[in-house]
Amino acid sequence: MAEPVALIVGAGDGLSASLARLLRSAGYRIVLAARNTQKLASLAADTDAQVYGCDASSPEQVSELFSTIEGPLRVVIYNPSARVRGPITELDPAAVHDAIDVTAYGSFLVGQQAARVMVAEGEGTILFTGASAGVKGFPQSATFAMGKFAQRGLAESMSRELHPQNVHVAWINVDGGIRSAALAEPADRPDSMLDPDAIAQTYLDLIRQHRSAWSHEATVRPWVERF
Amino acid sequence: MAEPVALIVGAGDGLSASLARLLRSAGYRIVLAARNTQKLASLAADTDAQVYGCDASSPEQVSELFSTIEGPLRVVIYNPSARVRGPITELDPAAVHDAIDVTAYGSFLVGQQAARVMVAEGEGTILFTGASAGVKGFPQSATFAMGKFAQRGLAESMSRELHPQNVHVAWINVDGGIRSAALAEPADRPDSMLDPDAIAQTYLDLIRQHRSAWSHEATVRPWVERF
Amino acid sequence: MAEPVALIVGAGDGLSASLARLLRSAGYRIVLAARNTQKLASLAADTDAQVYGCDASSPEQVSELFSTIEGPLRVVIYNPSARVRGPITELDPAAVHDAIDVTAYGSFLVGQQAARVMVAEGEGTILFTGASAGVKGFPQSATFAMGKFAQRGLAESMSRELHPQNVHVAWINVDGGIRSAALAEPADRPDSMLDPDAIAQTYLDLIRQHRSAWSHEATVRPWVERF
Amino acid sequence: MAEPVALIVGAGDGLSASLARLLRSAGYRIVLAARNTQKLASLAADTDAQVYGCDASSPEQVSELFSTIEGPLRVVIYNPSARVRGPITELDPAAVHDAIDVTAYGSFLVGQQAARVMVAEGEGTILFTGASAGVKGFPQSATFAMGKFAQRGLAESMSRELHPQNVHVAWINVDGGIRSAALAEPADRPDSMLDPDAIAQTYLDLIRQHRSAWSHEATVRPWVERF
Repeated sequence: MAEPVALIVGAGDGLSASLARLLRSAGYRIVLAARNTQKLASLAADTDAQVYGCDASSPEQVSELFSTIEGPLRVVIYNPSARVRGPITELDPAAVHDAIDVTAYGSFLVGQQAARVMVAEGEGTILFTGASAGVKGFPQSATFAMGKFAQRGLAESMSRELHPQNVHVAWINVDGGIRSAALAEPADRPDSMLDPDAIAQTYLDLIRQHRSAWSHEATVRPWVERF
Repeated sequence: MAEPVALIVGAGDGLSASLARLLRSAGYRIVLAARNTQKLASLAADTDAQVYGCDASSPEQVSELFSTIEGPLRVVIYNPSARVRGPITELDPAAVHDAIDVTAYGSFLVGQQAARVMVAEGEGTILFTGASAGVKGFPQSATFAMGKFAQRGLAESMSRELHPQNVHVAWINVDGGIRSAALAEPADRPDSMLDPDAIAQTYLDLIRQHRSAWSHEATVRPWVERF
Repeated sequence: MAEPVALIVGAGDGLSASLARLLRSAGYRIVLAARNTQKLASLAADTDAQVYGCDASSPEQVSELFSTIEGPLRVVIYNPSARVRGPITELDPAAVHDAIDVTAYGSFLVGQQAARVMVAEGEGTILFTGASAGVKGFPQSATFAMGKFAQRGLAESMSRELHPQNVHVAWINVDGGIRSAALAEPADRPDSMLDPDAIAQTYLDLIRQHRSAWSHEATVRPWVERF
Repeated sequence: MAEPVALIVGAGDGLSASLARLLRSAGYRIVLAARNTQKLASLAADTDAQVYGCDASSPEQVSELFSTIEGPLRVVIYNPSARVRGPITELDPAAVHDAIDVTAYGSFLVGQQAARVMVAEGEGTILFTGASAGVKGFPQSATFAMGKFAQRGLAESMSRELHPQNVHVAWINVDGGIRSAALAEPADRPDSMLDPDAIAQTYLDLIRQHRSAWSHEATVRPWVERF
């Protein structure tokens, strides 16, 4: 039987790499898609992954990406997001529009294509990487609030619509900074930043849930947070 | 002293008319803006209103609208929304994009311009007309969920940012159908649809709140709903 | 026609006094009930109110209170709450139990009696004074979280059950400290505490809402809060 | 090294049995506590469990239970709940009080004792079995709403307080009926009721989360629900 396929959109940062490695070890064939694929060579080699360039906010490119993927697509994960910080009075409307396109419209485009494949095949899991900005609108962060709220609304609507068609949809609120080589946590505050492998484990837990007990939302947050 | 000005964007339906009449009677000079201004002649006459054509999802047109308004702008209300219903697998991406622009991006554009004026003048109220689709993602309604969630995230962010600058921002969840000549309620179910005058009263209540006790969100819903 | 009656339970602090005065001026006959009635003499005189002693967490005393009230009971407001602060490991179980009784069980007892009268008469408004502790569980505040969450759950259930019987129920999140003679706000932070008269106005706005557009929840918060 | 201990309070139904078996297989020594221990003999034999009688709403009995447990207590799960259905006007106040004691006050008592042990030992996981009644107040269900909302408020407060002390707390919304011998699902609706083993797996996933990415809340729900 063909290996199940997991597509990770917005690959590149630490979370995507952890997801790729964990899903590879769990038996998935990995497909990585990103606007900029140059940085993915090493990860692709590690995980025997195919790599595609794709601007997730372009309907044509997203459609093209999905038409290229072969084999049984069982997992699709959407990671990209964009933010424009600053007082609302000073934000550049064009930049705001672009950011919403990346965070929310791209989620829709990828989610739609994933739904088409998975509804037809009668199974699959679609996961959106969210943030606390999707449950709480912070000051000076109107753009990110719009994008992440929209993404959460999309995921909720898709859950209610697609769960009865045996397609599992969940939105994961990654609430905090992700630990990386570039962004290390203070030595005296161990585990105060999210370990990308730990986040990836929760994604895999969701993928493996039995359909009689599916979650449509999850939040992960470092223990030190009083949130 | 100059009359305070209330701008109603997306004028045309029953709620906008009720808002215009109530705010006029409360002492505001009314400005109506809509993509299609032809239907506004009668309302404009009734409320001594100025009328402007404006596509609220166009940065240029929104900017132009605000530069035209004279006098102390104290109230801005954003009503437009768009929805595209259907299974997510069948939605037209371009129509989805347009709908998000109307519901969410237009809210941002108008909210931003309103914030600029009101922060500079040190007072004012900005109200967004929402829907239950902004708190719950319904099946077959991914587009409206995205737009209304985004709008609510925007309003929350603006509340937290602008309240300390003495600008009041609130999101109103109008949860149900609005009674109109075209859309009458069943005779045996009195008040089972929202009376637009009743909704407008809650908007005015919000406008009149003392700043020591501001609400940033409100929900209005017919008594017969078990919701 | 007999004057409509408004019952305020847990009278005594600044909010209750503001409510009594505002509802009196709006044409209600006022009934005040509190565990300790000694401090109510002045307010009762100001508002021509009847005063009753009542422990709101006693089923017998609450039942007795309602059997005593004459005339058309149109408004019932529940104010009492109790909190026990401290690390959860150190809380006294008996004190926790008592506090839940005051905040939540008393809300039920008074709400139930109010519902009996109002369902029978076919109209009325029941308002519960809540707090942000009912939407967010803060550290070192397990007791208040339990009581206020329970009260909000009660109010939601009652809204869904009683609205279709023409009885309006709402939970008001009074999110912040209330200004009083004993608790004054900093001189350089005007209106940074909730003015009790301003809160009371929102209660009256809720009471006056048309049933085609009822709110079941409201939050009021000082403008300076970034919350 | 001594086996880690998992205490399951309110043992007896299908979920408790699944939890006991899964945690036993995961290497925990199992302690079962319930008001009525007679029905636990078979499960205790299967899982090498100790069994204690305990009324979870009694401070003395809960304190006694924890003083009896030996070994490193690493997991505590609270399952009991009680509901009294019916129109709010007809509920028996004494029955309502008892039900809140079982659902909410018992959660506090057990949670407090667990916190004392785990804070002292510097690790552990406390899980509360919730229901959708804790996020939405349904009509004719005021009692259950109060109990489950209170329990969720408790869990949130404990999460914020105890996570920084390395004690993980989570509230699990088990949203739907649990499949059992007594309560079978329709043959034409496979997996339309929650499989208790599937729920238990999510509990174990939570227990195993890395502390840099803890969840404080989870919802599980059958795929067929449009919720």
